[in-house]
Amino acid sequence: MIKQVLIGIICGAAVLTAGILIGHFGITKSSSSAPSWVTDVTKDVDESLIEKFLSEVDNIQIQENLRELTKVPHMATTKGDEQTVQLMLKRWQDPETGLDKAWREEYLVYLSFPDPKNPNKVTVVNQSDIPYAAYSPAGHPKGKLVYANQGKPSDYQLLNQKVDLRGTIAITRYGGAGRGAKAINAAPYGVIGVLVYTDPLDINDGLMSDTNETYPHSWYLPPSGVERGSFNGQYGDMLTPYLAAKDDTYRIPVENITGIPPIPIQPIGYEDAYILICALGGEAAPESWQGAFNCTYNFGGPGFKPTSAFADSDVKLDIFNSGSLKNSSNVMGVIRGSVEPDRYVIYGNHRDSWVHGAIDPSSGTSVMLELTRVLGRMVKQGKWRPRRSIIFGSWGAEEFGLIGSAEYTEQYFAKLSERTVAYINVDIAVFANATLRASGMPSVQDVIFTAAKQVAAPGLDSTSVYDNWIRYSNRTSPNNGIIPKLGFLTGAGSDYAAFVHYLGITSMDISYTYDRSKTNARIYPAYHTAYDTFEYASKFIDPGFLSHQAIARTAGNVLIRLADSLVLPLKCSDYAETLDEYLNTAVSLYENQLKDREISMEPLKHAVASFRSAAAHLDHVIRTSDLRNETPLQVRKINDQLMLLDRAFLDPLAFPDKYAYRHVIWASSSAGKATFPGLADAYANAELSNDSQDWEKVHYHLSVLSQAIEGAAQTLQDVI
Amino acid sequence: MIKQVLIGIICGAAVLTAGILIGHFGITKSSSSAPSWVTDVTKDVDESLIEKFLSEVDNIQIQENLRELTKVPHMATTKGDEQTVQLMLKRWQDPETGLDKAWREEYLVYLSFPDPKNPNKVTVVNQSDIPYAAYSPAGHPKGKLVYANQGKPSDYQLLNQKVDLRGTIAITRYGGAGRGAKAINAAPYGVIGVLVYTDPLDINDGLMSDTNETYPHSWYLPPSGVERGSFNGQYGDMLTPYLAAKDDTYRIPVENITGIPPIPIQPIGYEDAYILICALGGEAAPESWQGAFNCTYNFGGPGFKPTSAFADSDVKLDIFNSGSLKNSSNVMGVIRGSVEPDRYVIYGNHRDSWVHGAIDPSSGTSVMLELTRVLGRMVKQGKWRPRRSIIFGSWGAEEFGLIGSAEYTEQYFAKLSERTVAYINVDIAVFANATLRASGMPSVQDVIFTAAKQVAAPGLDSTSVYDNWIRYSNRTSPNNGIIPKLGFLTGAGSDYAAFVHYLGITSMDISYTYDRSKTNARIYPAYHTAYDTFEYASKFIDPGFLSHQAIARTAGNVLIRLADSLVLPLKCSDYAETLDEYLNTAVSLYENQLKDREISMEPLKHAVASFRSAAAHLDHVIRTSDLRNETPLQVRKINDQLMLLDRAFLDPLAFPDKYAYRHVIWASSSAGKATFPGLADAYANAELSNDSQDWEKVHYHLSVLSQAIEGAAQTLQDVI
Repeated sequence: MIKQVLIGIICGAAVLTAGILIGHFGITKSSSSAPSWVTDVTKDVDESLIEKFLSEVDNIQIQENLRELTKVPHMATTKGDEQTVQLMLKRWQDPETGLDKAWREEYLVYLSFPDPKNPNKVTVVNQSDIPYAAYSPAGHPKGKLVYANQGKPSDYQLLNQKVDLRGTIAITRYGGAGRGAKAINAAPYGVIGVLVYTDPLDINDGLMSDTNETYPHSWYLPPSGVERGSFNGQYGDMLTPYLAAKDDTYRIPVENITGIPPIPIQPIGYEDAYILICALGGEAAPESWQGAFNCTYNFGGPGFKPTSAFADSDVKLDIFNSGSLKNSSNVMGVIRGSVEPDRYVIYGNHRDSWVHGAIDPSSGTSVMLELTRVLGRMVKQGKWRPRRSIIFGSWGAEEFGLIGSAEYTEQYFAKLSERTVAYINVDIAVFANATLRASGMPSVQDVIFTAAKQVAAPGLDSTSVYDNWIRYSNRTSPNNGIIPKLGFLTGAGSDYAAFVHYLGITSMDISYTYDRSKTNARIYPAYHTAYDTFEYASKFIDPGFLSHQAIARTAGNVLIRLADSLVLPLKCSDYAETLDEYLNTAVSLYENQLKDREISMEPLKHAVASFRSAAAHLDHVIRTSDLRNETPLQVRKINDQLMLLDRAFLDPLAFPDKYAYRHVIWASSSAGKATFPGLADAYANAELSNDSQDWEKVHYHLSVLSQAIEGAAQTLQDVI
Repeated sequence: MIKQVLIGIICGAAVLTAGILIGHFGITKSSSSAPSWVTDVTKDVDESLIEKFLSEVDNIQIQENLRELTKVPHMATTKGDEQTVQLMLKRWQDPETGLDKAWREEYLVYLSFPDPKNPNKVTVVNQSDIPYAAYSPAGHPKGKLVYANQGKPSDYQLLNQKVDLRGTIAITRYGGAGRGAKAINAAPYGVIGVLVYTDPLDINDGLMSDTNETYPHSWYLPPSGVERGSFNGQYGDMLTPYLAAKDDTYRIPVENITGIPPIPIQPIGYEDAYILICALGGEAAPESWQGAFNCTYNFGGPGFKPTSAFADSDVKLDIFNSGSLKNSSNVMGVIRGSVEPDRYVIYGNHRDSWVHGAIDPSSGTSVMLELTRVLGRMVKQGKWRPRRSIIFGSWGAEEFGLIGSAEYTEQYFAKLSERTVAYINVDIAVFANATLRASGMPSVQDVIFTAAKQVAAPGLDSTSVYDNWIRYSNRTSPNNGIIPKLGFLTGAGSDYAAFVHYLGITSMDISYTYDRSKTNARIYPAYHTAYDTFEYASKFIDPGFLSHQAIARTAGNVLIRLADSLVLPLKCSDYAETLDEYLNTAVSLYENQLKDREISMEPLKHAVASFRSAAAHLDHVIRTSDLRNETPLQVRKINDQLMLLDRAFLDPLAFPDKYAYRHVIWASSSAGKATFPGLADAYANAELSNDSQDWEKVHYHLSVLSQAIEGAAQTLQDVI
């Protein structure tokens, strides 16, 4: 009986235990168990997915993309441009490898074209194709030729001391001054027309023979190559400042456009420039004005040497350009985010070219198409969906002044400002195949480094893109030791401009570029000419497309990390390091003289110190917190601090004379100092004029700057 | 045996079942159980807590707060002001009923004061105390007196047809034009000084005898009462536009200040005005210029009737005001949010008065102190911590032009813009004890209604504040039927201005106010005079302080709901309703004439339609989603859409002539039409001048407006 009881108790205990186990592990709790979303919201970037992405990026696909994209010239709003629109849409809407959604968005924008029935002419010389200077006025100026070097203000000033410039035509070489500036600087002296050409010194390392030196024998520009470009002074559609250029949008009168050439200007090839310049009379120009032609560059009599074939001929420009409103398209594509669809990582490049545009911009577009093919397939197969949304933009009419991207940011200003984590720009993906080049806000340095360390350098299997990069370009960072040198995005060189300067979105620009020990070319020699073709690119820029592949892998890696990381990979202490350097430069350049004028730099020092300490604190919080086990709102709080950091540097009133420049740290500057741009410019201006009102402007800008940096520091501090 | 087996099986089953139950319910799961934060992040507002709050708000506490606050005059930056700073700090730092943290923030601001050693004088008449017009220049103009009604442009225009105004002193009554405008409008006619007084018609329902009609016999202003005020034209410190007024901040030269009187102006009581006006010679002024004095208001000869005691005397002003830089303090206090500390609900009122300021602003401050006492105690006792952070602001120097609140928004622009859910302003809490009055963005209507329905109307136990309100002021809403009428915050009447117009933060202003069937007073009669005292307030404005209590309950209820609700109680479809009404008005007023000028209103119609449909969609999503069981990031996404809605309406370039007005829907307007302010003003201007450039400005503003509304609609649509 006792035994039976014992057995009964033991069995009962066993059954009870079994029951407890079943009850505990076998049945899902409804009330207190974790909701299914807990795992999703705390998930971090998946390194194996990045491996997979890197292995799937294919150089031959990129090559074939480029071949397809460059079949016909695709200048903005032409038939060729429309073909590329259709190509992008087809790829991004592909059921196997496309994105969640893709569509086109049109803007009615003001462009400038030559007249096909009346090709622009430069008499004395003749031209075969129709290159032109976009936004040059039409006109038929005729006058004696003079040589004005690079068309800088100082060039015309010197030239004017030698020659009466009234009624002359000036020939200038590219470089040194903005395109339009060469004409704008000329007009006050009475110059009535301008020519611009590419000197072999600046683009071809001096070489100029098309029988054995230039393309197709090398990457150098042949004598007939003409560099085109937009000769305007601000970015975005010029008739609709700050407004998206929709059909009914208010447009300023064309005559109110500022910053474009007031007199006709025309680009020519150096074969023509050679004939003209070597025939010029007058005194010899200074050494620094001399180019690669085998003759002395004279100022001009004005006009030609009496002994030359042209003797006292005039040069006549017949420019038939005209402005017109055209529909330009952006092609947009998205992959919806799974956890934070309201956070955007934007990746973009322009689609339009001047002629075939193999390198500019189709190298970048080929890379973008390969990225979207690999990512799109993972999405379509259900293998991946990013935490945050990804937006791809194929911008229109960049060549005319970053128009498509600027109009996009104007139209969606609020939404993009509120939600965009970062913008990645890959325009010319490969300038040359030597090394990575990256520019951006300092906070993106770390994620670019991480990505570059995971990608093999093209042609160097055991060296990473990062290790290769550090050999070509490096600096010593107080925080990080010797590291590759990241550039800054201080100008409006590509479609990042509106994102950086107008919206204050953390941005970067990524490419492969030159070995500067091998060339001094201003840029790859076929830039903006009819020679920028698939053949040129595949033979002389990146045979095998391995540098394209490296860019696709690096930029794609950055993209995935920005889209998938639990905590945004943006490092604010790297930003602080740059502000510190800017401050040190400013103090050493300006403090003494400002003290004499009772303008204190203490508020700026205080602001940078606040920023430094707030950034260090936030970095520390990120490093030491177990954020995967924190509430997702705690992570979101930190991510919002990181995402919105650059927005805090915006002040729409900081640069009243610079269109759409609002970022007080990165605005363009003419002072040429490695410090805060508005301060440097205001100081240079005051120093020049020594006008007390100009010194007050220095004080004003110091206050603007200090307030913005203090405000940014506030956003990094503990939130309350 | 079978029986035993059966019993065994049954027992075994029972034990197993018990085991399963114990296992399932008795033991907490560790691996897959919900993290502790899941409950917190999905918690909604607690109605029982609101009940508790309402029951604890005490009218006697408010009365004692007011008694304490009004013991001495506390004009900005005076000793009395400092006493109130100390009081606020003491209360907010109280260990039992204080906030988490409280501190003061100082700004060095430009104020204007009379000279205690040289009281301002108006000769012919004499004054006992030192009232003055802040920012009136000093000066000693002497001339013949004229009567200029309200000092509007049209008043001076008419008067100038009757009298040569050169060298005259104009006497004007309050109302009709801004304070400073009365002098600004006068100067072009050669007027050299201005007096301003309060006519008994406008403030006292015509009554003026101090022996039996005015205070202390009633709430009406006694004859010696002088209304002070700031005579400036923009808000915030005038020397540091857009910059926080810190010690080293750049300051514009005083002579560059615009919008302040160019000639001396001085306020006087109506006992003095009576003597002057009834002695004036010249032709009788029109009917609409007549006030309540028992004489005919004449234009002035200029000067007095030959038969009057003053005969051909001049009137002389001796104004000794001077500007000076003073340290003004905001007192700030916070309650940290538990779940979303990076979301702020801000509640504020100014602290400075002109004299004792019992009603303006101490009624609001008394209410704020009672709110913080009740909430602070709940926090200190560990009974409550809001989901979001609450910031309390006791602003300095409001009376001089909303200076403290404006400087605060300038200093913390980025942080406040990014994180502020709403701003609640309670300045004058009780103008009178008849009914609630509330103004704000339309999206706050719903939460104010919810709160007002839960509070008993003062003195009417079975009627809610809401039910009482709807009797006094109502309208028919297409969406909501007959509802109380919410006002809009289109001007800069109190500290909400910088939040609404400069930062685009959803704001509201709440008070108790008049029964308009009982008085036509422009405002409560003791406004800005030395009669605005505790005795006046407790005897004639709100005996028993029940209206104060109702405001504390209503505003506090709104505050708790904004801080604690899972989904922000901001209703964007109510915003859409207002935009629809604005659009309808604009179309009926402007469309035909704009069509004639080939300016299309279609983009505006499209924008409002986009907004309407996006708002309806978002409302639907909120109504139909089970958001407590969604990921907290989904809720945050919606809350961000609601929080940032007003930010999308900002355009810093929309109103180049209006300082710190950026909100395209609520900016001040002089056209007097219930529609989009910039459009209405541009249209009125173009209609007047009929200049084609002015019509272009109408087109321009239409584009600005359409783009802002489309942009706002975009932020409400599905995020990607």
